[in-house]
Parts: sequence; structure tokens; C-alpha cells
Amino acid sequence: MHINAGIAGLVGALLIGKRTGYGKELMAPHSLTMTMIGASLLWVGWFGFNAGSNLEANGGAALAMTNSFVATAAAALSWMFAEWIIKGHPSLLGALSGAVAGLVAVTPAAGYAGPMGAIVLGLVVGVVCLFFCTVVKNALGYDDSLDVFGVHCIGGIVGALGTGILVNPALGGAGIIDYTAIPPKVADYDFAAQMISQLWGVSTTLVWSGIGSAILYKIVDVIVGLRANVETEREGLDITEHTERAYNM
Amino acid sequence: MHINAGIAGLVGALLIGKRTGYGKELMAPHSLTMTMIGASLLWVGWFGFNAGSNLEANGGAALAMTNSFVATAAAALSWMFAEWIIKGHPSLLGALSGAVAGLVAVTPAAGYAGPMGAIVLGLVVGVVCLFFCTVVKNALGYDDSLDVFGVHCIGGIVGALGTGILVNPALGGAGIIDYTAIPPKVADYDFAAQMISQLWGVSTTLVWSGIGSAILYKIVDVIVGLRANVETEREGLDITEHTERAYNM
Amino acid sequence: MHINAGIAGLVGALLIGKRTGYGKELMAPHSLTMTMIGASLLWVGWFGFNAGSNLEANGGAALAMTNSFVATAAAALSWMFAEWIIKGHPSLLGALSGAVAGLVAVTPAAGYAGPMGAIVLGLVVGVVCLFFCTVVKNALGYDDSLDVFGVHCIGGIVGALGTGILVNPALGGAGIIDYTAIPPKVADYDFAAQMISQLWGVSTTLVWSGIGSAILYKIVDVIVGLRANVETEREGLDITEHTERAYNM
Repeated sequence: MHINAGIAGLVGALLIGKRTGYGKELMAPHSLTMTMIGASLLWVGWFGFNAGSNLEANGGAALAMTNSFVATAAAALSWMFAEWIIKGHPSLLGALSGAVAGLVAVTPAAGYAGPMGAIVLGLVVGVVCLFFCTVVKNALGYDDSLDVFGVHCIGGIVGALGTGILVNPALGGAGIIDYTAIPPKVADYDFAAQMISQLWGVSTTLVWSGIGSAILYKIVDVIVGLRANVETEREGLDITEHTERAYNM
Repeated sequence: MHINAGIAGLVGALLIGKRTGYGKELMAPHSLTMTMIGASLLWVGWFGFNAGSNLEANGGAALAMTNSFVATAAAALSWMFAEWIIKGHPSLLGALSGAVAGLVAVTPAAGYAGPMGAIVLGLVVGVVCLFFCTVVKNALGYDDSLDVFGVHCIGGIVGALGTGILVNPALGGAGIIDYTAIPPKVADYDFAAQMISQLWGVSTTLVWSGIGSAILYKIVDVIVGLRANVETEREGLDITEHTERAYNM
Repeated sequence: MHINAGIAGLVGALLIGKRTGYGKELMAPHSLTMTMIGASLLWVGWFGFNAGSNLEANGGAALAMTNSFVATAAAALSWMFAEWIIKGHPSLLGALSGAVAGLVAVTPAAGYAGPMGAIVLGLVVGVVCLFFCTVVKNALGYDDSLDVFGVHCIGGIVGALGTGILVNPALGGAGIIDYTAIPPKVADYDFAAQMISQLWGVSTTLVWSGIGSAILYKIVDVIVGLRANVETEREGLDITEHTERAYNM
């Protein structure tokens, strides 16, 4: 789901182009306190999603909840520490971005990895997503203002591949159940077969969503237009398009 | 409960009178981001209220939770789309007002309607409350700054009457249990009897609360006064009455 | 835990010294709306902590949840009313401070006191903490900007001692289980023994944490320094130390 949205976001960012002034003007988040509140509510709500999606209140839900918690915390810390090393300062925005990357990555793994595996997954995804949101984004020059690609697509890929590794019972994972056996039992873990399966899922999602979203963007562009003109962009779409202001002091 | 509070709010608005400058000056919400956070927290908390009020974690609670979710979402959308058609623009404030109207309306229905009925209820209440908060309010000229009457009282009435319709098992409702039968069974649904019962409940609430609140407002007016004078109103009650500022920059 | 953090906070406040301008300039909270949102999220999250810490969904969890709710509400009200009487105005900041004090105090008592006992505990802790955050703080002159000592340490002590009183089955408490009896039974309540036990816990925490934190502060002071210089303090640590602004308008 996140790979899907993330690649579609990248295609959109490429088709729409950069914001006017991108790279020349400071475009920092408007209110970090709102970012903090939003990320906090997201984290809490995500527990319901990961732990509740099996519609069961049992040990599996408890495992999913624990994994969601530790992976997210680990990713927040790893992004923060990596940023600290690279830029000389940790940042709240970095820690929150890491937390979202951790939530994305742990979602497929929540029911399959063990807690130690989830922590490793979180530590890895925080650093990988930071790399994509800084080095890769700057090198390729696309303007992805919410880092949908760097956090959600890359985080989703790390999570999908990581789940294939961490499901291994030898790494504390839950294993794959062989329902053809009588009675059903945990199948022997086959790393190559599992990773081919995960890579196949990731690749088809990237191709399908990348091409599909490009077609849809083109259709929307023809019908209503994708990009605001420079004047309305400068004035702000809140007022010109939505006719609504966030603050009335 | 909402009919009660809503009619008392209307009586209060009529007795207190309009804010100084009402209709001549812009009185937009101070911070839409706060409105968004508040409505979001309200929606989440409301799940506990509707699904938890029977003190049981069973299928009835799951039904109440599902109904609360879909009716609220439907009302947010119907208010937003109706506003889009009428004013040419959807608004965040409208969508949030619709969500609150949906929460109010689905509260009596949550345990009795089916999910499809709850969606219809939400779609209806969003449009009806928008009508009362714009056309009716402007026509009658009262100053109800939080739309307590238009959202809570009208939403509560739509919910009370809607519950009487949607409880019908033929519409996916849970039906009324006849506890005098041995064993208890779902009674035959009688539309006329049910609606008379709901209308009786709505009417007595309106009369009792409307008259009762008018008497209480008058008593308060005599003892401490209901309305601030124009100077303190202009300066703001935060400072003059509460001696506390929301922001200290 | 709160006594621990609270006394360490006081030691830190004493070692670091007052903020530049303390007592001469107004240092009101920057945004009361944020305070309100934060305290609300804290209250909701705390239910998970108090009711969920036994990892059981049973009557004990329900008791802990009920106690957490009523004690917190009582403390918010008692702080607010005490402030109303003393200063002539209730305040939102006071009510929220009282709520936090109530959460702190009820945490040890949540599984042991009865609901009526929890209400009394909340009423007491709101007034006691207000006394320490105003009269005692002003008399001693330390600068504890978040009232970590007045709310958390004092609230924790009131809660620890109050639990020793309210666990008494004669006051509606759950009593102490004597697991050496066969079968285990509620032991006879011995006020003196219980209070000596609670006082011993409070005292050792105060001494251990007070001395331990003083040593750790001194080590940190030598290695990285505890206090910003006046220029960076005046400019704001957000920018000088964290290189991150809360708002970018």
C-alpha cells in the first residue's frame, strides 16, 4: 500500500514539477508543533491498524502491537542519530520522519517478525529513508515536499523485503504456515524462495502503480489541470483554490 | 442529550442576543488547525462512548463502532459536497461540522441501525444540518456562534427520528426486542407506533429543555448577569473575565 | 518514578540556577492551546498505562481505569477551585496542572484504592500541589519552570502515602493480599506498619535520587556544561542549540 502510494507520489512530483522557488527559498515546515501532534496521533492510531487488522484480540495482536511500538521507536532514534552524525544536530522533524518510516516498514512485518527483528528493521529503515530523503532526493532533484517517495515507498520496500527475512523462525520470526500439511505446521524457511516472492510483489507494485498513476495524472491534467499557475501558487492555494484560511487572528 | 443541549443553546443565544458587530464584521474561526485537531480527538473519543456504553465487548459493540464510523464519514462527505454545490467550494470547516453532525445523529442509532442505514442517516443529517446552519440561521437572524442548535439539536432530532426508521429489521436494523415474550424475540416492526414514540420523546425534550433553560438563564441573569458589556466584549473575555491569554508569544 | 524524577528536577533547577530575567519578566506559557492538547493526550494515554500495566483485561483493570478517571477529574477541579478562592480567578493552566497532579497521585493507588478513595486523593493532591507550586516555590525562590518538583515529586509523595491509607478495606480499598496464607487472603490492615513501609519507600527514593542526580549533573557539567550562556539563552535554545524553529510563518 505504501509502495503503491509512494511511487505514485514520485510520479506525480515528477509530472507536476518543482514548486516555484524550490531550491532557492527556504521551505521549512510551517509549524513543527503541528507536525509533532500529527505524528503522535498517527502513531497511536496505527496501533489499531496493525494490531486490529486480524480482528482478533489474541497473542498475534499483542505481537503486532509490540512490534509496531519497538520498530517505530527504533526508526525514530536511528534517523535522529544518523542526522546528528551527518549534520551535527538531531532534529524533531527527523525523529518524526523516522517514526513514520518505522510505522510504514513494520506494517507488513508486524505479525511475522519477532520483537528483536522489528527493532533491527526499525534501525535499518530510519537510516535508509534518511539517505533517500537527502542524498538521493538532492541528486535527482525532484521536489517531493512530504517525502512520500523517500519515506513511504522506500520504507514500504524495506518493510516488504525485511519481512521476508525476519519471518525466519531462526531470527525469532513466526514462520510461514504450511496449510497443505495435515495438521498445518510451520514450513521450512527457504530464504531464496521467500525473497523472490517478496521482490516479485515489490516489483509488480512499482510497475503497476508507476504506470497506472502516470496515466491517471495525464487524464486529470487534460480534464482539470494538475498545476496551479505561478500567481495563485505565490498567493497560496488555501485562499485561491480552497477560499479558506488556516488562521484568522 | 444533544436535543436538550441544542435547544438550550438556542434559547441562550436568543436571550443573550448577538455579538457586537455580528453580521457586519468577519467572525471566522480563529484557527482551523485547532478545529481539525479537536474534531479528530472528538471522533476517536466518541467511539469509546458509542461502542463502550453498553459495558460489553461483543458484537453489539462492534456494530455500534462500525455505525459510528460510517455515519460520521458519510455526514462529513454529504455536508462537504452540498457546500461544494451551493457555494462552489468545499471547506474543511464544513467537513468537520458534518462529522460532528454525523456523530450526534448516529449516537441513538448506533446500536439499532444496520451499517447501510447508518450511512444513509449520515448522508441525510449532513445536508439537513447544513441547511439549518445557513438558510434557517440567516433567515431567523440568531447568533449561534458554535451552531449548537443547527448541529446538535437538529442533528439529534434527525438521529432520534432516523433511529425509529432504521431499527426496522427490513432496513437492516436490529429490531425492538419484545422481552414480554417467552423467550424474548424481535417484535413486529410498527412504523407508526415507533415514530409516535420517537416524536413524543423529541417533543417533550424540546419543551422541557427549552422552558427549563429559559427559566435558569433568567435566574442567572438576575444573580450574576448573562452578558458582558461592550467594552469587555471588544477587549475579549479571555483577558477581562478569565485573565488568561491563549498565546504568549 | 515521579518522586524520583521530581526530586532530580528540583536538584537540577537548584544547580542550574534561575533563568535570566526570572522574577523580573513575564514567563507565561507560550501557547495554552498546546498545553490543553498535550494534557488531553497525556490523560488518554495514561489510561493505557494505569489500566494496562497488569497485562490483564479484567475487573482490576476496570478499577484502575475508573480510579484514574475520577482522581484526575477531582484534582483538576480542586486545583481550579483553590486557585479561584485564592487568586479570584480559575485558570485553564491551573486545571490542567491539577489534572497532571491527579494522574501522578493516582498511579500507585489505581489498583488498590476504591473509587471514593480515589476522589478524595484527587481533591487533596490538587490543593497540596498548588500550595507547593505557589507558596513554597516563591518562598524558596527556585526556578522550576515546569513545576516538576511541585507537581510530580509532591504529587508522587501524596500518592504513595495516600495509597497506604486508601488500600484499607474499611475505606473501600482492595487490601493487601497475604500470599503466605493458604489459601491467600486479604491481610488485616495495619495502618502504622503500612505507613512506615510507604514512608520508607518515599524517603529512600528522595535520598537516592537526590544524591544520585546531583552527582550525575556535576559529571555532565564538567563534560558538556549544564547551562547555556546568557546570549544563547536570550536568543533561544531552539535556534542556537537545536537549529530548528517551531514555527516558520
